[in-house]
Amino acid sequence: MPRAVSDGGENLNGADIGGSRASSHCVDSTGYRVSFPPKKSLLQEFSGSVKALFFAGDDPLRQYKEQPSWSKRVWLSLQNVFPVLEWGRHYTFGKFRGDFVAGLTIASLCIPQDIGYSKLAHLPPEIGLYGSFVPPLIYPLLGTSRDLAMGPMAVVSLMLGSLLQKEIDPKMHPLEYKRLAFTATFFAGITQAALGFFRLGFIIEYLSHAAIIGFMGGAAIIIALQQLKGFLGIKNFTNNTDIVSVMKSIFKSAHHGWNWQTILIAASFLGFLMVTKYIGKKKKKLFWMSATAPLISVIVSTFFVYITRADKHGVAVVKNIEKGINPPSASLIYFSGPFMLKGFKIGVEAIAVGRTFAGMKDYKLDGNKEMMALGTMNVVGSLTSCYIATGGFARSAVNCMAGCKTAASNIVMSMVVLLTLLFLTPLFKYTPNAILSSIIISAVLGLIDYKAAYHIWKVDKLDFLACLGAFLGVVFSSVDYGLLIAIAISIAKILLQATRPRTALLGNLPRTTVYRNIEQYPDVTTVPGVVIVQVDSAIYFTNSNYVKERILRLLEEEEERQRQQNCPQIEFLIVELSPVVDIDTSGIHALEELCRALVKCKIQLVLANPGPAVIQKLRSAKFIELIGEDKMCLTVGDAVKRFAPKAVDGV
Amino acid sequence: MPRAVSDGGENLNGADIGGSRASSHCVDSTGYRVSFPPKKSLLQEFSGSVKALFFAGDDPLRQYKEQPSWSKRVWLSLQNVFPVLEWGRHYTFGKFRGDFVAGLTIASLCIPQDIGYSKLAHLPPEIGLYGSFVPPLIYPLLGTSRDLAMGPMAVVSLMLGSLLQKEIDPKMHPLEYKRLAFTATFFAGITQAALGFFRLGFIIEYLSHAAIIGFMGGAAIIIALQQLKGFLGIKNFTNNTDIVSVMKSIFKSAHHGWNWQTILIAASFLGFLMVTKYIGKKKKKLFWMSATAPLISVIVSTFFVYITRADKHGVAVVKNIEKGINPPSASLIYFSGPFMLKGFKIGVEAIAVGRTFAGMKDYKLDGNKEMMALGTMNVVGSLTSCYIATGGFARSAVNCMAGCKTAASNIVMSMVVLLTLLFLTPLFKYTPNAILSSIIISAVLGLIDYKAAYHIWKVDKLDFLACLGAFLGVVFSSVDYGLLIAIAISIAKILLQATRPRTALLGNLPRTTVYRNIEQYPDVTTVPGVVIVQVDSAIYFTNSNYVKERILRLLEEEEERQRQQNCPQIEFLIVELSPVVDIDTSGIHALEELCRALVKCKIQLVLANPGPAVIQKLRSAKFIELIGEDKMCLTVGDAVKRFAPKAVDGV
Repeated sequence: MPRAVSDGGENLNGADIGGSRASSHCVDSTGYRVSFPPKKSLLQEFSGSVKALFFAGDDPLRQYKEQPSWSKRVWLSLQNVFPVLEWGRHYTFGKFRGDFVAGLTIASLCIPQDIGYSKLAHLPPEIGLYGSFVPPLIYPLLGTSRDLAMGPMAVVSLMLGSLLQKEIDPKMHPLEYKRLAFTATFFAGITQAALGFFRLGFIIEYLSHAAIIGFMGGAAIIIALQQLKGFLGIKNFTNNTDIVSVMKSIFKSAHHGWNWQTILIAASFLGFLMVTKYIGKKKKKLFWMSATAPLISVIVSTFFVYITRADKHGVAVVKNIEKGINPPSASLIYFSGPFMLKGFKIGVEAIAVGRTFAGMKDYKLDGNKEMMALGTMNVVGSLTSCYIATGGFARSAVNCMAGCKTAASNIVMSMVVLLTLLFLTPLFKYTPNAILSSIIISAVLGLIDYKAAYHIWKVDKLDFLACLGAFLGVVFSSVDYGLLIAIAISIAKILLQATRPRTALLGNLPRTTVYRNIEQYPDVTTVPGVVIVQVDSAIYFTNSNYVKERILRLLEEEEERQRQQNCPQIEFLIVELSPVVDIDTSGIHALEELCRALVKCKIQLVLANPGPAVIQKLRSAKFIELIGEDKMCLTVGDAVKRFAPKAVDGV
Repeated sequence: MPRAVSDGGENLNGADIGGSRASSHCVDSTGYRVSFPPKKSLLQEFSGSVKALFFAGDDPLRQYKEQPSWSKRVWLSLQNVFPVLEWGRHYTFGKFRGDFVAGLTIASLCIPQDIGYSKLAHLPPEIGLYGSFVPPLIYPLLGTSRDLAMGPMAVVSLMLGSLLQKEIDPKMHPLEYKRLAFTATFFAGITQAALGFFRLGFIIEYLSHAAIIGFMGGAAIIIALQQLKGFLGIKNFTNNTDIVSVMKSIFKSAHHGWNWQTILIAASFLGFLMVTKYIGKKKKKLFWMSATAPLISVIVSTFFVYITRADKHGVAVVKNIEKGINPPSASLIYFSGPFMLKGFKIGVEAIAVGRTFAGMKDYKLDGNKEMMALGTMNVVGSLTSCYIATGGFARSAVNCMAGCKTAASNIVMSMVVLLTLLFLTPLFKYTPNAILSSIIISAVLGLIDYKAAYHIWKVDKLDFLACLGAFLGVVFSSVDYGLLIAIAISIAKILLQATRPRTALLGNLPRTTVYRNIEQYPDVTTVPGVVIVQVDSAIYFTNSNYVKERILRLLEEEEERQRQQNCPQIEFLIVELSPVVDIDTSGIHALEELCRALVKCKIQLVLANPGPAVIQKLRSAKFIELIGEDKMCLTVGDAVKRFAPKAVDGV
């Protein structure tokens, strides 16, 4: 059955070279031996790890080192802290035109959204608007992104609201509730800035793409369901966010609590919003229709309610929005006592959610610098009556499509919101709540990325499980619990991979010196008298025992199979170490045990292509001396050639 | 600088074959294309994962399938549950002789140890002895190990004692304390058995070898320090286990609390024990000296105290040990109320420690079956006044050296303990506590494996950090806290590896088609116009962004270097995927981003040797269509040959 071939072709190049170096006993057939990487001092190793962990392997001071003069270095540092200094110098009127149009567009989108989102957080509507005034002024000075449009975000608002109301009832104690919200915002900002400053942004990377998709889908459904309160005109509604409580609330009120006038308004404008959104998606040029549709809906519906006085027929309206710009709120923040700690905790959870979303759509850039910018923005926001703001990506996408050129579009938006706060708030008096619900529903439905979920299902089943777990956690329990499930599943997945790595038998691709997985390459032939095994992971304490068992098991099976084919006795076990990028003391221990087990069956262990980390540790642990230096080969092909030359030269 | 060569040798074998298959556009130079593994159904994938996770990739029913008749299958199942049925059938008198001698030897070791260990757990001495009577009777019926000798163990006793006394004061409420101890034992047994039954034993694999070494060393020091109470004859001693409290306790009592007679006895016998131990280690044949030394010390010192009536001069003695065999204790276990939960928690923590130790010295065998045996043993033990027993490895080592043939040596030991309990307990009346302290100190000093710690330091610095963390946690805080630190560091290490994998540039080993890490192999030459990068980990959400950044950074650096050498423009980026054993949706997403970034610089992405999992997912995600099927190569050598043939044929 083994189709070993004998044409000269596979007599690899190195054969002749091997001869010329044959004086050394461990020269292999390609003329090279397995090399050791240069030894690094402890300090070098440590600084290498720190660079890898915090600076993506880059030298953080590289750009400074390249600059000769001190003044340039100072200027560089200033630019690093305030990116505006860089793009501001090249700012032109042409760019401003783009930013101006984009700013107007996102302002028209954000004003109705802000009012709606503040309701999700159980805060007065003007606080939502404040959040689109101060934060977008701060961000352009510090942030690195061109497209990100700042302001309150749906899921963060929901999260904040549901966490805050666990502590304080927003209806009974509105002032304390507001104070706690500012406290949470302040500490969220501090945490963001600190994580960014210490370059710990990577901590939040422990959420997989799949878990985020699931989490977002769940949050979108929860938010949409919550909006049914305004949509159906229900007065008594549950405070819980899980689907069971909400559905109960809705059906309990079905007989008398629904208001048909409200439903009519809400449904017709939801239809309008969805249609414009669909058009905007189909024809990129008409995106402005979907961007301005919310504001148009607000204006039209407000006018309609004002004329028909529908508010007297049970249609709930926004009523008063406080006029004027953000009042200072530094004195409202709890800097001591139990509410400080609670605010801190809530703030951290809320930014975890916010960051999650930011990570979604390629808005990563320099994650740590970005976090410092967001943190500073939120600290300033918390001192000026704003709650947690972040880069919402619905509005960021609109910003981008509207042709923004720099972060200055945020400033334009901010100015529009300023004018609204100063002069236009009375106009919102008759705006029906139902229209805000419709706007939010149409906004969050876009977060349900069923296509991505299907894609995940097709590509990776385990990933889909994480997605589903996060989704169900949010929908059936609560937002923070869903987040926890998402993190847990994500980490469990990594640990699982580290615990049960794949192992495979390799075979020879006929007429080559290439050895590949026999499951993947049906053409390969096994080499009589030799078993070749590949381990698909670093060998760590989590899998060292398993790897040993698996290798012995594969050896046993292959031995049995070869015996049935009347092949010669197995004499060598070759372990392909290319995918074994690292090993620890438990792993070396397992290899030693493997060796001992093999000695009993008179089989010799040969290692192929150990990488730098592995070879260094095997040497330190004196494992190389145990199996003999000639048993370390550069490739599997070399190993077979050296130890089973007959099998390759043709039996 | 690139030393590309032109001798025919490197024109790999496949060149001619390539021609014969050239009809297909993606045939590569060795004549093979990258294959896809056969598609598996969802069920096959799932059952494959389950087998890997729970049965080390083996078919659990394999042995049954091989058996034709039902009666044989039943017999096989019985043998699986009761391994005694297998080895019992071949039991001979010769084997019994070995077991008898071994049993006597370990009995002489265990009796003084048991009395001492029960003091660590703050339990009466007879309960320690009970633990060497019933559990060693149960284990041989169910257990798979030949060498393991059952009974109380030092660290588990310490852990149990320190956890229990946090709940109940053993001096004030001895009965309640005992009840809680039995409750903890009961639930420890249930947990062990359940973990074993559901094959979840692997959960406890999340403790690295290094962390265990550190933990054990710390525990040994803590135990030894605690023994200074008996050793120095101190009456008032702290209940805390951390080194600071203990040292304070000792120095506070230095003026008046020490008893010179006690110290004299303790020190001289400790010397005796250490010397015999040293001899036993040096000459394997004299191991019986170290095995019987404890019993000899007890006999001699007891006799000495009896004659001199040293107990009247402040030498504390054991006093009464209850005569008779284990009383039933089922009625003492808390099956409800808060103490049930506490007992449960304590039990679980204690077996986590016990299991840790079991994992130390190759006593792994069939971990899950073993855990079921230990669990059953402890459940029965808890019903017969024993506290948690496990396979102590000091006595297991002695058992092995004394020539035990089967688990029956446990039964012999059990019988000796039975006789002791029935007839010999009064003889321990004058046994000085100091001698027990000496025995425990000499026993646990062997747990401080400084050689292993040094070995870890030499081989793997990060592992050493885990070791040190666990050690310091135990010594300066408490046993359970140390365990927690050990687990946390162990898991953090895996996550770190998954977050910041190594990346490297590859180069060509002149005159071969082998490409290797340029840091490891100083001989390699780079290929002009091509950058070859290797990523040393599965690409997951934790590292996808980092990997992308690193690849781009390496590309940039290499581009700069090649430009300085006047090499042609970089046209291809080859990514060696051999170590990339898996990828998830985030990883594919990162590759797509990489592609997009490369398109901007007019560089094409080529992937070399994608494994089965990677190629399948890349196909499902339509990534292969994105970069083109001809960009998937079997080896880096093929890729270079196909896309930069000039560079290889000699520039």
